[in-house]
Amino acid sequence: MSKSLDYENLNENVKKCQYAVRGELYLRASELQKEGKKIIFTNVGNPHALGQKPLTFPRQVIALCQAPFLLDDPNVGLIFPADAIERAKHYLSLTSGGLGAYSDSRGLPGIRKEVAEFIERRDGYPSDPELIFLTDGASKGVMQILQAIIRGEGDGILVPVPQYPLYSATIALLGGSLVPYYLEETANWGLDIVNLRQSVAQARSQGITVRAMVVINPGNPTGQCLSEANLREVLNFCYQNKLVLLGDEVYQQNIYQDERPFVSSRKVLMDMGPPMSNELELVSFHTISKGFWGECGQRGGYFEMTNISPKAVEEIYKVASISLSPNVPAQILMGIMVNPPKPGDISYERYVRESKGILESLRRRAQLMTDGFNSCRNVVCNFTEGAMYSFPQIRLPPRALEAAKKAGKVPDVFYCLKLLEATGISTVPGSGFGQKEGVFHLRTTILPTEEDMPAIMESFKKFNDEFMEQYEDQRGYSRM
Amino acid sequence: MSKSLDYENLNENVKKCQYAVRGELYLRASELQKEGKKIIFTNVGNPHALGQKPLTFPRQVIALCQAPFLLDDPNVGLIFPADAIERAKHYLSLTSGGLGAYSDSRGLPGIRKEVAEFIERRDGYPSDPELIFLTDGASKGVMQILQAIIRGEGDGILVPVPQYPLYSATIALLGGSLVPYYLEETANWGLDIVNLRQSVAQARSQGITVRAMVVINPGNPTGQCLSEANLREVLNFCYQNKLVLLGDEVYQQNIYQDERPFVSSRKVLMDMGPPMSNELELVSFHTISKGFWGECGQRGGYFEMTNISPKAVEEIYKVASISLSPNVPAQILMGIMVNPPKPGDISYERYVRESKGILESLRRRAQLMTDGFNSCRNVVCNFTEGAMYSFPQIRLPPRALEAAKKAGKVPDVFYCLKLLEATGISTVPGSGFGQKEGVFHLRTTILPTEEDMPAIMESFKKFNDEFMEQYEDQRGYSRM
Repeated sequence: MSKSLDYENLNENVKKCQYAVRGELYLRASELQKEGKKIIFTNVGNPHALGQKPLTFPRQVIALCQAPFLLDDPNVGLIFPADAIERAKHYLSLTSGGLGAYSDSRGLPGIRKEVAEFIERRDGYPSDPELIFLTDGASKGVMQILQAIIRGEGDGILVPVPQYPLYSATIALLGGSLVPYYLEETANWGLDIVNLRQSVAQARSQGITVRAMVVINPGNPTGQCLSEANLREVLNFCYQNKLVLLGDEVYQQNIYQDERPFVSSRKVLMDMGPPMSNELELVSFHTISKGFWGECGQRGGYFEMTNISPKAVEEIYKVASISLSPNVPAQILMGIMVNPPKPGDISYERYVRESKGILESLRRRAQLMTDGFNSCRNVVCNFTEGAMYSFPQIRLPPRALEAAKKAGKVPDVFYCLKLLEATGISTVPGSGFGQKEGVFHLRTTILPTEEDMPAIMESFKKFNDEFMEQYEDQRGYSRM
Repeated sequence: MSKSLDYENLNENVKKCQYAVRGELYLRASELQKEGKKIIFTNVGNPHALGQKPLTFPRQVIALCQAPFLLDDPNVGLIFPADAIERAKHYLSLTSGGLGAYSDSRGLPGIRKEVAEFIERRDGYPSDPELIFLTDGASKGVMQILQAIIRGEGDGILVPVPQYPLYSATIALLGGSLVPYYLEETANWGLDIVNLRQSVAQARSQGITVRAMVVINPGNPTGQCLSEANLREVLNFCYQNKLVLLGDEVYQQNIYQDERPFVSSRKVLMDMGPPMSNELELVSFHTISKGFWGECGQRGGYFEMTNISPKAVEEIYKVASISLSPNVPAQILMGIMVNPPKPGDISYERYVRESKGILESLRRRAQLMTDGFNSCRNVVCNFTEGAMYSFPQIRLPPRALEAAKKAGKVPDVFYCLKLLEATGISTVPGSGFGQKEGVFHLRTTILPTEEDMPAIMESFKKFNDEFMEQYEDQRGYSRM
């Protein structure tokens, strides 16, 4: 008799799920790093790991909250500004025993109120703190909502392809069905409502009840920003089809063009008025991990529910309570993110300077990277309008496909592994996100520092162009 | 057509699960608090919420890690001791970009090494950092492991009754079957192997494959400490029945008697030698939320796997990676917990003084509370040997049972609600943990401060004795 945790006895859904961002490429990169090779981790949007400095003010406040005894120290003013001290006192007063006490499972009421005020300022419509739950990062929120929705494999979730694999992995883990809708690469990864209709019709013909739709705006891994008109179409579509819209808006501050500023799904919905604005079920997600904060390691996020039935809200609250509470330090960081220093505050100027510096640099890097890819042989890349990623298409020659097959690898995995071994650049193959049959991509973040970027793109170009030369060569010799 | 998130359309497992620690009593207490009533929250082991101060040294270190720019400040030595500064530098050097960067999904390798060294010092056997995963609190770790094990309702998990409802809730959520084994109240909540055998036999006769066994030591809510001999019996039983043992040892530092010091399941297993020590599957859980730390709000824990197949370890790693990483600040706190200041360090004496103060006070409170309950009419309570809870039995008179029935409440819920309304003491009814038919309990933490304790016990006694008098009264008049 085999043991309980032998592979063949494990939960099948656990075995089925895949998470490419930390898959084969990442594991191989970690090995190479252990062996002493210098690795540039662009597989995951992790800005601080690539040298981005934390913003000063939030870190001052959270440090003081961690060490509340400093608030009574006569020397505290020597190393902390007065507004950080005031803020720390404010946030500690919202807790029920400091950072060491569990909060309510939805998060601290005082912080949820600050989030609601932020949403109201952003969208121009009131928001109810009772419908905002704080979470250990946006991913955890997405999992909580999908868990409430998915009852079995007959339940389908519309997910963009290419998509962020959090969705495919979570749907697999919960035993549901992913219903893909393809984004149009030639239309700068636009969302075409005709594709959506086809996807739903096809799923229904297979007996699947489509229950929710995921929109990632700005897009991950594809970097596009949706227009208001496009969002209205999506909302209409969800309304007609009785779908919950899951609005993944974690990159709302990462916008690198001026034609289409970020507009939240919720604002567009409210603008559309009744009956839709009173009925359409919407859950929106946000985080402290992206934007110009990049505080990934702290694990803080929230979701806001609109038109979700009170009983469902109660059930989601109940399930959240099994994990007791999201971590309290990141809740406070979320409070600071949605309520940053204001004009006139001691720390205002510094906060603005640091934030702008990061965002402007990201905009330049988005351009540098897109241009770099487009200068490479057999590589074409849409401009990164938003988020933190480039998703170039790699046109692999037939002999490269053969070589991959011989090596027992998916073609883009083959390419990305060779890239990793040759240059130390750790990317994620497009197959991890989904792509059309016979078309290959990779995802890289735009996060290496501006100083490092030229050397990285040069190293990529050298590898790629040699790779292409080798596999396009018709004379049959091999350089490998 | 109803909406996707209407109650009738939700995942049935979500609806089925119950979590009494934050159930009806907690919700009512929160309401009363909003209305201005003073509530004593003893429903959850949340020491800082009841006035326990955080230990100074770990908070100094984590504050410096949050504000690394302070390490270059010439004034930093005025408010932080040199060993905290050194430690902060040490832990920052283990990260890949400070607290704002995601770590490996298993946690930072350097911290996992410190945990392994702690386990080796504690048990006298080497421990492998590759088999230690850091988590956002022990609960999250328990969920990850149960998720890998449970494939459907045919899979059973042996759980003590009374039990901590994390287990019943998670098993329900994952669609598995809870197989109860009863602890013996008259034997100070001892674990009788005969009961275990009967439980397994009964489950099998119902077609359930029993796959794992949960042992909570010290016990929650029951407070008993298992002897080495008892643990050996349990391990033998798991070995014979091919069960994974889940050792919930989060209260290992909360021991209030000297006869049975804490011994880990892993040490007992290793002491037993081959073949068992090479084969029996064991996962052990620990946390920064309990002990004398009580850092619940920070959400830090770990689990250690022994004799788990490498492929299962890989699968568990893969699923962990979907959530990217546990929060990094709590990982560092875990590092400090398992590697506290040593004799000779500047902060050693203070750390020891603070720790001992808390533990000695908890020991006195365990006694005060048990004695208090045993002085009440119709209440009997085993001594709290360990953990953080008292679990008195409340002998409800027949007329109280009738009154509960009339009110549409489970009898112990009826009693606890009346207690809450009369005194503000928020407890959890025994039915939330499971208990034998017709027997009633409540769980309270022993965490109110020593200064508050006499008044709380007096207020309890007054309520209880009046309640009993009212419902034992045969003359038919009512005081309520």
